[in-house]
Amino acid sequence: MLAASQTAAAKMGVALTCAVVDVRGDLVALARMDGVAFLTADVARGKAITSALFGQPSGGLPPQMGPILQSLGSIARTDILPIQGALPIVRNGQTLGAIGCSGASSQQDEDAARAGVQTFR
Amino acid sequence: MLAASQTAAAKMGVALTCAVVDVRGDLVALARMDGVAFLTADVARGKAITSALFGQPSGGLPPQMGPILQSLGSIARTDILPIQGALPIVRNGQTLGAIGCSGASSQQDEDAARAGVQTFR
Amino acid sequence: MLAASQTAAAKMGVALTCAVVDVRGDLVALARMDGVAFLTADVARGKAITSALFGQPSGGLPPQMGPILQSLGSIARTDILPIQGALPIVRNGQTLGAIGCSGASSQQDEDAARAGVQTFR
Amino acid sequence: MLAASQTAAAKMGVALTCAVVDVRGDLVALARMDGVAFLTADVARGKAITSALFGQPSGGLPPQMGPILQSLGSIARTDILPIQGALPIVRNGQTLGAIGCSGASSQQDEDAARAGVQTFR
Repeated sequence: MLAASQTAAAKMGVALTCAVVDVRGDLVALARMDGVAFLTADVARGKAITSALFGQPSGGLPPQMGPILQSLGSIARTDILPIQGALPIVRNGQTLGAIGCSGASSQQDEDAARAGVQTFR
Repeated sequence: MLAASQTAAAKMGVALTCAVVDVRGDLVALARMDGVAFLTADVARGKAITSALFGQPSGGLPPQMGPILQSLGSIARTDILPIQGALPIVRNGQTLGAIGCSGASSQQDEDAARAGVQTFR
Repeated sequence: MLAASQTAAAKMGVALTCAVVDVRGDLVALARMDGVAFLTADVARGKAITSALFGQPSGGLPPQMGPILQSLGSIARTDILPIQGALPIVRNGQTLGAIGCSGASSQQDEDAARAGVQTFR
Repeated sequence: MLAASQTAAAKMGVALTCAVVDVRGDLVALARMDGVAFLTADVARGKAITSALFGQPSGGLPPQMGPILQSLGSIARTDILPIQGALPIVRNGQTLGAIGCSGASSQQDEDAARAGVQTFR
């Protein structure tokens, strides 16, 4: 999945960090491309966690949920980041995890994540 | 750079703390002028971190990003402070770090930071 | 590097998580093999950070340094885990980062890490 | 003071980060020489804090005080690091602050700190 996302990123002319998490939000795999800022690792993971926990795109949560999400992340001791760029990994209607990317525009991040998800299906 | 910022501060009749960080946000140099409150050291550093991580003036981030920045700082365990007073240090289009100042008005803080940046070029 | 470590793990009949970090301790790549506990991701990363920051095997630090390392990790807000299983990535005498593994015995973890390092050379 | 410490370090053929703190342990000035690891900034500061708060060399505290110092640092929310390499800045019998260095052997760190202190007198 990460290879597909990186290929998509290269085609768009951007460099990204992408992260795959399981349904619990724990890290399964991560790859940071050359020259990408360190912060993107945490951002990609945070987006992926958000997508996995809610079973939907990380950018699809209503903005007014922001404070609740912050409390949720604190209570559950996980890193929730409701920013566009992560998509859930779903099989037979069941969320298995998510993949999130960071480093370019939010739309490009999500496009790269989608390329990864499509490999999985 | 710090000497130039302090000279600029003295010309404005203010006393400041200025901090230089690298592109990762780690402290490279810091100087607190006589009589400046201790809090300014953390504020100058936090502004500089923000400017380095985003490659732009610390006061230029849109206010609605506030909550996301708070989450980001918490997730990445770094001190993000999106307040005017820090400028990125850029060479050949690449951000190498930032310099941030604190102790006077935000505009004066930024003016002193600019004096430091100009020495670097 | 991760592929080489996973191949070595498979040959030993164990399943691991391995993590690669840069010289600052920031995550570059991580891969968790099927069926490996979530905790191994943090452990592999912590070992790798330790190896990168000290430029030596994570298991080589003297035990009496334990309390100091705990303080250091807390002060520098990074995850130091002085347990065998990570090796530094060195080129021309300069530490570039480290690779750490977790999931089997400490010796097997280190053997898998070594397989990864050898690919790099 | 920092210039004198850096000169001493250069004479010893080492590169350091040195930090000056006031009697409260708050940062007054810091300088990281080229190529010195980020961790040294926190270590130099932590040593200097320890020296300033106890009015003695940071390496002079008895090892059995370790756990108490850790609790003290946590309670007072400051970073105590009882490792050799920092010396108090004293005038007329009164501790005004401390200077701490990190990056070489503990003895060299302290020697560089001493060069800084001697400039102050």
